[in-house]
Amino acid sequence: MASVTDRAHAEALDAADPLASFRERFAVADEPIYLDGNSLGRLPRATPERLAARLEEWGMRLVGAWSGWIDEPRRVGDLLAESVLGARPGEVLVADSTTVNLYKLASAALDLRPGAVVVGPDEFPTDRYVLEGLAAARGRELRLTDPLATHGGDVALVCLSLVSYRSGELVDMAAVQAACDDALVLWDLSHAAGAVPIDLSAADLAVGCTYKYLNAGPGSPAFLYVRRELQPELRTPIQGWFGQRDQFRMGPLYEPVEGVERFHAGTPPILGVAAVEVGAELVAEARIERLRAKSEKLTALAVDLHDAWLAPLGFELGSPRTPAHRGAHVSLRHPEAWRICRALIERAGVVPDFRLPDSVRLGLPPLYTRFVDVWDALDRLRRLVVDEAYADLDPALARVT
Amino acid sequence: MASVTDRAHAEALDAADPLASFRERFAVADEPIYLDGNSLGRLPRATPERLAARLEEWGMRLVGAWSGWIDEPRRVGDLLAESVLGARPGEVLVADSTTVNLYKLASAALDLRPGAVVVGPDEFPTDRYVLEGLAAARGRELRLTDPLATHGGDVALVCLSLVSYRSGELVDMAAVQAACDDALVLWDLSHAAGAVPIDLSAADLAVGCTYKYLNAGPGSPAFLYVRRELQPELRTPIQGWFGQRDQFRMGPLYEPVEGVERFHAGTPPILGVAAVEVGAELVAEARIERLRAKSEKLTALAVDLHDAWLAPLGFELGSPRTPAHRGAHVSLRHPEAWRICRALIERAGVVPDFRLPDSVRLGLPPLYTRFVDVWDALDRLRRLVVDEAYADLDPALARVT
Repeated sequence: MASVTDRAHAEALDAADPLASFRERFAVADEPIYLDGNSLGRLPRATPERLAARLEEWGMRLVGAWSGWIDEPRRVGDLLAESVLGARPGEVLVADSTTVNLYKLASAALDLRPGAVVVGPDEFPTDRYVLEGLAAARGRELRLTDPLATHGGDVALVCLSLVSYRSGELVDMAAVQAACDDALVLWDLSHAAGAVPIDLSAADLAVGCTYKYLNAGPGSPAFLYVRRELQPELRTPIQGWFGQRDQFRMGPLYEPVEGVERFHAGTPPILGVAAVEVGAELVAEARIERLRAKSEKLTALAVDLHDAWLAPLGFELGSPRTPAHRGAHVSLRHPEAWRICRALIERAGVVPDFRLPDSVRLGLPPLYTRFVDVWDALDRLRRLVVDEAYADLDPALARVT
Repeated sequence: MASVTDRAHAEALDAADPLASFRERFAVADEPIYLDGNSLGRLPRATPERLAARLEEWGMRLVGAWSGWIDEPRRVGDLLAESVLGARPGEVLVADSTTVNLYKLASAALDLRPGAVVVGPDEFPTDRYVLEGLAAARGRELRLTDPLATHGGDVALVCLSLVSYRSGELVDMAAVQAACDDALVLWDLSHAAGAVPIDLSAADLAVGCTYKYLNAGPGSPAFLYVRRELQPELRTPIQGWFGQRDQFRMGPLYEPVEGVERFHAGTPPILGVAAVEVGAELVAEARIERLRAKSEKLTALAVDLHDAWLAPLGFELGSPRTPAHRGAHVSLRHPEAWRICRALIERAGVVPDFRLPDSVRLGLPPLYTRFVDVWDALDRLRRLVVDEAYADLDPALARVT
C-alpha cells in the first residue's frame, strides 16, 4: 500500500470511491482546485434546467402557477427534513436568509423563556450579532461564552453551531441538548447540513444555509426547523402575510397558521427554492451516511498530509484530530495564513478560504472533491511555503473575503 | 373618431402607442388576456439570459465571483433610485422581502420616536400584521385608522401605500408628508414602483415589491429606501453580518456599516437581484413618465367601458374616477365578483384578480398591456355577466387566491 505522501495513495482512494461519479453532476473544471465549497458550493448541472422550468411556468402560467409554487417551501423543507436534517415532515421550511431565520426563531424563543442568551465567542458573526441585538432589545443578558460552561437555570436560549465555521469542530448534539436542558437550544447547521448526518429528533430549533454543502447558489434561501410540538407555542416577530391563517382572506388581525408555515414572512423566493430542491436531491441520492464516510477519509488525508508535510514548516492543525469530532473542512493555522492564501489563489491554482486570524480553511465537500484534489492542493501548498512564494505579497488585508 | 365602445378606438390607441414595442420584450401569448400583472408581472425575455450569466459566473468563478456580486444589491438599488423611485444614489437597497424590509425599517423608526403606530384599515395585510406585531412587542398603541385622520404629536410612525392594492387610489405623497410632519412616514410602494412616477425627495422611509410592475419574478427580492440623512440614526433590528462594518473581520460586536447597506441582513440573493436589474432596466428604458402617460389612458379606457357597459349591469367603480388619483389598476365592484372572476378565468380567457369582498381587480401594466386587451377583456366580461355564465359556479371561496 502506498504511503500517504505518495499520490498513488490518493489515486487509489479515488478509484475505490463509490461516490466518485457525483463529481460529474456538477459544473467542474480541473483547475483551479476548489476547496471553498463550504463558502459557496458548486453549481449542480441540474440547476439551470430546473430554473428554466420555473421560468417557463412563470412566463406561460403567470399568476396561475402559484397554485403549484405555494407549497414548495414546505415540500422542499420536507425533503431536507428527511434526507439531510433527520427531522419529521412539517418541521422544516425553506425561507428567507439564515440571519433572518435565526432572528425569527431566537425572538420567538425569548418570548417563551425568561433569562440570558448564550452564544459562543467563536460563533459565526451573524449569530453573535443577531443575538446581541435581540438581547439588547429585550433587556436580556448576553453571554459570549462557551455554552457548555455557562448553562444553568437562568439561561433562556443557547445558540451554537453543530460544526464550527472556523475549526470545523463537530459538537455532540445530544450531549449539548442534555447539558442545556433548561434552555432552548437553537442550532446553526450552516456548516453541517449536507456534510454530516444530523438527527434533530431531540432538538427544538435550528436554522441553516443552503449555499454551502447543499449547493443552492449565492444567497440562496435558507431553512428553519421548529420541533413539531413547539410550533403552536412560538410566534414569529415578523408577522407577514405568508404566515397568516387563511392568507387570502386578508383578515383584520394577524393569526398565525398552523404548522411550520407560520414562520414564513413575505412571499417566498420560488427560483431560489427550486435551486435548494436540486441541492437536497443530490444529497438524498448520494445518501448522507455515504457522504460522511467519504468526508471522514477526505479530512483524514488532509490531516495526515499536514502532519507529514506542513507541521515541519510551522503549520498547526486548527481542527480536531479525531475524524468523528470534525465536519467536512479542515483548518490549518500559520502566522502567514493570509499571504499564503493569497498566493495559493493567485499562483498555485488552489482556492482555500482565509479566516482571521491565522487559518487556511480547506473545505472538502464529499459530493465533488477528489482525494487527488486534497493531495495536489497540499502538495502545492507545501511547495509554496518551502519556496516562500508568498513573501513578496502585501501583508495588509486589503479586503478580506 | 370611433366611440370608446368600438374596438377601433382601442386599435387606434395601440397604433399611436409609442411604447407598443415593449410588449415584445416579454414572454407573451395573446391568450389568455392577462390583467394580473400587479400580482405577478410577466417574464422579461432578457431574464433567462441574465440568470444564465449569473449561473455561469457561479459555475466557473465560484466564490471568486463574489467580488463582482457583493455590490449588486446596492448597484441595482441605485438603478431603482434613479429610474423608478426618485431617490438619490446610496438610498436604495435590494434585499429580503417587502415584509422583512417593512419590519426592519418600522422597528428602526420606533427606536427613534415615541408614540403610536398608525396604519390604514385597508392597507395590504402584511403591512397591518407587521405593524400590529411590532406595536404589541414595543407596547405602542396601534391605530388601524386612516393616517390622515389621526396624525398628531403622539404618533411615531405612519405606514401607508402610495397606491392602494384594492382601490388603486394614488395618494398625494407630498400632502401626506406635510400632514404627518411629526411622525415618520413609511411608504409601501409595492403597487406604485414601475407604475407611477415617484419622488422620494421629501420621504423618510419606503419599501416595495419587485414582482409586480418591475417584473422580477415570483418572490423576487424587495427594495428598501432610507433617506440619506436618516441612515446614521437608524439601526436594523436584524443585526446580520452583511450589515456589519468590515464584514470579513468578523469582529466581536456588531457595528453597522455606513450607508444603506446597514439594512442588509444575511447574504443577498444574487440570482434574484439580477432579475430585479432586468426589470428596472426595462422601466428605465421605457421611462416612467411615458409609462404613466400610457397607463392613465389604459385605466381611462377601462373606466369608460365600465361606465358604458358594466354600470348598467350592476357594477360600481371601486377606483378613483380621476386618472391623476389612481395607479395602474382598476377595481370593479359587483356582488358576484368572486364567481365572475372564476368564470373570467375558466371560461372567458381573461385573468383578473379577485379581492375580498367584491372586487374584480384589473391590473394594466403599461409595459405590455395593449388597449385592445382592455377592450376585449371588458367585452368578454360584459357578455359573461349578461349571459350569467357564472351563475352555476359554486359561490363558496374554495381557496381565495
